Amino acid sequence: MNPVDLIAIKRDGGTLTKEQYEWMITNWIEETGVIDDAQVSAFLMAGVLRGFSKAETSFLTEVLLESGETLDLSGLSGPTVDKHSTGGVGDGTTLVVAPLLAACGVQVVKLSGRGLGHTGGTLDKLESIPGMQINLEDTRIMAIAEDVGCVVAGQTADIVPADKKLYALRDVTGTVASRALIASSVMSKKLASGADTIILDVKTGDGGFMKDRESAVALAKTCLEIGQRAGRNTRAIVSDMNTPLSGGIGNSLEIIEVVHTLSHNPAGRFADVCLTLATLGLSEATGISTADARERLVNAWTSGEALERLQRMIEAQGGDPQVCIEPVDVLPAAPVQRELVAPRDTQIARIPAMRIGEIALNLGAGRTHAGDSIDHSVGLELLVEEGESIEKGQPVCVIHARNDEDADVAQAAVVETIVFGEGQVADTILEVL
Amino acid sequence: MNPVDLIAIKRDGGTLTKEQYEWMITNWIEETGVIDDAQVSAFLMAGVLRGFSKAETSFLTEVLLESGETLDLSGLSGPTVDKHSTGGVGDGTTLVVAPLLAACGVQVVKLSGRGLGHTGGTLDKLESIPGMQINLEDTRIMAIAEDVGCVVAGQTADIVPADKKLYALRDVTGTVASRALIASSVMSKKLASGADTIILDVKTGDGGFMKDRESAVALAKTCLEIGQRAGRNTRAIVSDMNTPLSGGIGNSLEIIEVVHTLSHNPAGRFADVCLTLATLGLSEATGISTADARERLVNAWTSGEALERLQRMIEAQGGDPQVCIEPVDVLPAAPVQRELVAPRDTQIARIPAMRIGEIALNLGAGRTHAGDSIDHSVGLELLVEEGESIEKGQPVCVIHARNDEDADVAQAAVVETIVFGEGQVADTILEVL
Repeated sequence: MNPVDLIAIKRDGGTLTKEQYEWMITNWIEETGVIDDAQVSAFLMAGVLRGFSKAETSFLTEVLLESGETLDLSGLSGPTVDKHSTGGVGDGTTLVVAPLLAACGVQVVKLSGRGLGHTGGTLDKLESIPGMQINLEDTRIMAIAEDVGCVVAGQTADIVPADKKLYALRDVTGTVASRALIASSVMSKKLASGADTIILDVKTGDGGFMKDRESAVALAKTCLEIGQRAGRNTRAIVSDMNTPLSGGIGNSLEIIEVVHTLSHNPAGRFADVCLTLATLGLSEATGISTADARERLVNAWTSGEALERLQRMIEAQGGDPQVCIEPVDVLPAAPVQRELVAPRDTQIARIPAMRIGEIALNLGAGRTHAGDSIDHSVGLELLVEEGESIEKGQPVCVIHARNDEDADVAQAAVVETIVFGEGQVADTILEVL
Repeated sequence: MNPVDLIAIKRDGGTLTKEQYEWMITNWIEETGVIDDAQVSAFLMAGVLRGFSKAETSFLTEVLLESGETLDLSGLSGPTVDKHSTGGVGDGTTLVVAPLLAACGVQVVKLSGRGLGHTGGTLDKLESIPGMQINLEDTRIMAIAEDVGCVVAGQTADIVPADKKLYALRDVTGTVASRALIASSVMSKKLASGADTIILDVKTGDGGFMKDRESAVALAKTCLEIGQRAGRNTRAIVSDMNTPLSGGIGNSLEIIEVVHTLSHNPAGRFADVCLTLATLGLSEATGISTADARERLVNAWTSGEALERLQRMIEAQGGDPQVCIEPVDVLPAAPVQRELVAPRDTQIARIPAMRIGEIALNLGAGRTHAGDSIDHSVGLELLVEEGESIEKGQPVCVIHARNDEDADVAQAAVVETIVFGEGQVADTILEVL
């Protein structure tokens, strides 16, 4: 085998074998000198433009998976579920879904990531809780999963190292936008995390990774195929990310939203997505009907068991459990909190997710570059949602800022961003696959 | 500007501006750190698959050209002509065309290259002449061109350095086969060499760079467009390289062929290509009709003036001028010379150029890798050509080898390669553009 021949196969529209992917990726990762960045980059661009077959997408996923360690969850007593979202704004579903499933006897080991750009990251949200530890040894992860039923931690360095290197190359060579490459990146990490059942939430819309519904459905299907070929129960939804999923945007604010949501009966867009994802996970993992699964989950929710699981998980990971009772007292608060009110009697026509995410990012809630530091206290608290009728003077949004200058900038941006007037309420869950 | 945006434009089928090519290539060549090999390689692959516009091809050519020094031929008294062949087997046209044009009052400054793979290089052929210097200072090149009318020398390091680096990257990333990239590589060097008139010989067939006639015509047209956009008189032929152009294949053997050809009245395939190229060059450079040009060239040929110019050029470059009178006495001879004869009364159906070139390469006449050393004495001397009737026992080929073992290997290969039986004689000059 030699790199130029493999590149030429893809350039000319052919497909590579598993052995060829193994040779290429392994030699590249191990820097054996037979294939370099420029050659992999040419191959990737050829693949972006010529496409990858379903088999190739699975081969690539397997090779990425085999590049590192995998979590072995077979020592856990219950069925195991993992969940992945392609990232959104005001999207704290993991922190609702994991304890819900745990309360129904399923074990959730979720290796999560940090936020980048306008989208938040579950680890950042958790770190706004005083004392919370997210860098855990595998043995500790397993112990918490067995004891509490759910655990959310950072990815260990040994999981899918090839994906990290491949993504870094794709990021600088214009080769991110390939469904097969995105799917193999997502699924290699999910397969490495060891759960029997994998539930995916592919976001579509201006604040989602896939801008149009068709691409999102195609990505979800590609991920499903990879999961199923690998022998995992895999289900996916495609959900709307044209508007923030919940009103909390920013790290502390999203924890408050999660606690608030689990403290009340399920209602609204955010609860709907959480319940749908959990229903798929519970029914796939246990074999019960989705109707039965949903009923059990609603019981766990309304009885307070799910919130209690979240509290136990936070405590097990060193965080202050009081956050589940009085989150505002425990979490860091921004020095400036400025309320914006409706200028007239009207309706909310549009709250675009991307712009709202960017305003929170600019307040300091997120990162422009990986490694940037963030401020857990700041962000936006939306008090209304698209389609809602509002009265003059009614609070619409609270800006949580480090200082008045930041609040001024955010205020001007929010005023420009939220569109008043008649609008249509879009569906939140677009597809269940 | 940033690399990912430029890559994305090409990936999505768009076109870049001259400024964008300048930014990309200049920063890459100068290693400023803003763009690396992997990014250029992704861009090249996107271009191979999406294509480059005519304007882009010219932009790229200009940027390559501007990366280094150019020869200024304005100090020469006569009109100037340059000639380029895409490379073939038994193709010593440069050493016939240059003195022919010189004998007709046109000045030819030809910066030539070395052979690689199955194709020979003019510099290697010239170096088989004892004393011959091909590494000349610009001032010496200009003096010989003015005094003799023709000079053939090695490319100076300062000519189009970006092309060298770009080709090295293309070679390892499967991005060689792009008409625009090939044409900009060829034409940037021709434009840098400074001649007013550029004559191109694009070879097609199994031993040529372009395997089919359609691609060869397209490449020739792309080169013509670049030359014309740059304000040079540019003409091209597409000629057959399915069979060696002449009977001498190997360095000394090709010099013998050139001297032999210029010592006799023009006849046959090789003379035809030489005369056609020289006719285009002379008529373009001086404005006379092709009929007049051809007549003058035939006179220069048959009168011995062209051979005399070749002799003066060789002498001016330090070579033994006796090579133009008794080449066999002057040039290095191989220790083993083995004649192969016809096994029966028959005809020559096929002498494939590629295989013949490879046999000569394996005898030591060429290089597998740039920088390999070569043996000037060895090669194949074909005594017959496609379509020729032969009698049993008639000499068909002489193998010039370093030893009997090499000759045995070559003999077996030649016997396998030359096809006896009825065949069609193909046209040599396929298009004049």
